[in-house]
Amino acid sequence: MAQPVNLAEKLSLFSELWSQRKIADLNDYEVKLAKLHGEFVWHTHEDTDELFLVISGRLTIQLRDGDVVLAPGELFVVPRGVEHCPKADEETAILLLEPTGTLNTGDAGGARTRPVTTLD
Amino acid sequence: MAQPVNLAEKLSLFSELWSQRKIADLNDYEVKLAKLHGEFVWHTHEDTDELFLVISGRLTIQLRDGDVVLAPGELFVVPRGVEHCPKADEETAILLLEPTGTLNTGDAGGARTRPVTTLD
Repeated sequence: MAQPVNLAEKLSLFSELWSQRKIADLNDYEVKLAKLHGEFVWHTHEDTDELFLVISGRLTIQLRDGDVVLAPGELFVVPRGVEHCPKADEETAILLLEPTGTLNTGDAGGARTRPVTTLD
Repeated sequence: MAQPVNLAEKLSLFSELWSQRKIADLNDYEVKLAKLHGEFVWHTHEDTDELFLVISGRLTIQLRDGDVVLAPGELFVVPRGVEHCPKADEETAILLLEPTGTLNTGDAGGARTRPVTTLD
C-alpha cells in the first residue's frame, strides 16, 4: 500500500550534518532532506538550478551579490551558474530538489563532498 | 536583490480552488501552489511523475488500489501512468512540482482543466 512521506519522521532518522538523504524520486530528480549548521563551501552548479525549502531553523544562501535568508516555509531556487554558499547559524532542516546525480559541492568538489544516501 | 518565496504569503494572494499558481521555476519544472476542496477528476499523466506536498489541511490521493492520505508536512509522488483523483474534505493547500506544461487534468481533459498562472 502506498504511503506518504512524512518529513518530520524522515528528519528524525538521521543527525549527520551536510549529508543529503533522498526521500523520493520525481522522474530524474531527487527529493532530499539535509540538516545544516555552520557554513558550507562556495560552489556552482553549471548545469542545473537548485531548490531549497526550509523546514525548520534559518538558512542563509550567500550569493556574490547579497544574502537570501529563508525562514521555515520559504523556498528559493538558485539559478544554474550562480555561485552560492549555504550557511546556517542554528541547526536547520531543509528539503532540496535537483536532478539525480547533482553533486552537493558542485564545481568545487573537495572534502565537503558527500554522496546522497537513501532514507527508507 | 533576490528574495525567498514565502509559501503562506503566496497562498494569501488567491482563493480560487483547483487552480494552480506558479511560484518558481526549477529548470524545466514548475513549482506551484493550489487550494483544493472537494473532489477532482480521475486522470493520468502518462509522461511524468507528479509531486504533492501538503501545506495545510488534508489531502486524499485516491488511487485505483487504495487511498494515500497526506497531512501537513507530508509528500507523495504519483508515478507516471498511475491513475489518481485528489480529494480534500476540508480546504487544503498544497505545493505541486512537475514539468512545465503538465496539464492539471492529465489525459482526462474536460471542464476542470485550468491553465497555470503565475503569482508574482
